[in-house]
Amino acid sequence: MRIGFLHPGSMGVSLAASAKAAGHDACWASQGRSSQTRERADENGLTDVDTVQQLCEQCSAIVSICPPAITVDVSRQVAGSNFDGLYLDANAISPQRAKAIAGIVTKAGARYVDGGVIGGPAWTQDKTVLYLSGTHAGDVVDWFAGGMLATSVLNADPVAASALKMCYAAYTKGTSALLYGILGTAEAMGVRQALQKQWEEGDGVLAAKATGPASGVTSRAWRWIDEMQEISCTFEEAGLPGGFHAAASEIFRRLSDLRKESETTTEQVVEALLCEPSEGRS
Amino acid sequence: MRIGFLHPGSMGVSLAASAKAAGHDACWASQGRSSQTRERADENGLTDVDTVQQLCEQCSAIVSICPPAITVDVSRQVAGSNFDGLYLDANAISPQRAKAIAGIVTKAGARYVDGGVIGGPAWTQDKTVLYLSGTHAGDVVDWFAGGMLATSVLNADPVAASALKMCYAAYTKGTSALLYGILGTAEAMGVRQALQKQWEEGDGVLAAKATGPASGVTSRAWRWIDEMQEISCTFEEAGLPGGFHAAASEIFRRLSDLRKESETTTEQVVEALLCEPSEGRS
Repeated sequence: MRIGFLHPGSMGVSLAASAKAAGHDACWASQGRSSQTRERADENGLTDVDTVQQLCEQCSAIVSICPPAITVDVSRQVAGSNFDGLYLDANAISPQRAKAIAGIVTKAGARYVDGGVIGGPAWTQDKTVLYLSGTHAGDVVDWFAGGMLATSVLNADPVAASALKMCYAAYTKGTSALLYGILGTAEAMGVRQALQKQWEEGDGVLAAKATGPASGVTSRAWRWIDEMQEISCTFEEAGLPGGFHAAASEIFRRLSDLRKESETTTEQVVEALLCEPSEGRS
Repeated sequence: MRIGFLHPGSMGVSLAASAKAAGHDACWASQGRSSQTRERADENGLTDVDTVQQLCEQCSAIVSICPPAITVDVSRQVAGSNFDGLYLDANAISPQRAKAIAGIVTKAGARYVDGGVIGGPAWTQDKTVLYLSGTHAGDVVDWFAGGMLATSVLNADPVAASALKMCYAAYTKGTSALLYGILGTAEAMGVRQALQKQWEEGDGVLAAKATGPASGVTSRAWRWIDEMQEISCTFEEAGLPGGFHAAASEIFRRLSDLRKESETTTEQVVEALLCEPSEGRS
């Protein structure tokens, strides 16, 4: 089976590697992509078919795995290529956006499966789980069987996998943003050291996070700006306040420029949080 | 030394008990207070001087320890009684509100000390810390020396103690609100069970919190509605987004009616979160 990946970022190539381990041909379309993406795709043995049009013609399955902001565009491109196979959206998007994408691709003749990845890039056996939902969810399991990626079929609800991803990320990334927001506030108020000392009296987890390396967050903050907005929309759709993640989105926006640094510290994070004027405060 | 407590709630009586242990006379003013407060004050051996006016005349020190929403009113009452002793505001309020209160009482001739309590009511040795800041902060230490309450003088910044309290509570209570917000969203989206299962794969702390008794939160949520607003204001004053705690305030608002229940479960919390329409969404 030929499976197309739009686009092979660090998560995408790990999914493609699991598809290859399952005996499938993992393809991608290089047109318009960066040299970094090409390098990653080549290293992981993906087959380049040049264009999205070609990808849609040659593959019976497409996996959309890309930043939240371009997910709808990707689905439109695929729909525009008259793709009539199985379309898996595995992105961190709200159930509402997932529904919109399902509508776009099914109207063009494809079948839609909703997905959500929990965990980092799948380079360790069963540490990363691809949740699947919708009528055709079961069909996707074989795409990755035998690879590092674990799969879990949720239920027939068309967008349950996206909902689960949103709820899970809401805590992990939401609390990271909150922690840094607090450190920025404490710094501005002249009590960061005292706060740190009080946290050390606790179980030490928070104190350690507050002084440990920040690169795990700052290298990915640019991508989480939109993911937090998606979570905020998910809360609002459920009738709950979206303010937590609208604020988290703003925190990550201020940290997004630190992506350029290879190692970052709490000091740099606090500085970045305080030197920028607030934009789109929630 | 006679120290007046406005008003002896569950935290207040524990502070009064520490003042008594330090050899002071802990006083209160019963006029207009509930029978529950009277019972608590009597049980803990507080001296009733009837009115706030009397309290201000007979005491050389006043401790304001009350819900955030009435802190300014309390300071105005004390200022209106021409109190010229030492006024300690030990409440969970923003630095801005603390500054406003400092202005009110010092204008009337009193000296102001800013305080912030971290921990529950002080019934265990040194488990609860009263942070103190401002020029006269050191004078307050003797009020509680020998009691269960620990004190810690921060620095001369007039409102550092309030700032520290806000930053500390921002995480503890903010993450509680976030957790329940997520559970409500997951329930509305039909993925609460799947989320719980995924959380169980982690260190189990979150999973345990999500199914454990909710009474620790629901019995105090009514009081945290305003405290979260104070934290939101503190963030905004620091130039950081206040949305986390505006959302947390809304979560606690929806849970405030559960105060009447002696034991509450996650099921009741989720139901309360989802059955109320959103008000003042952030």
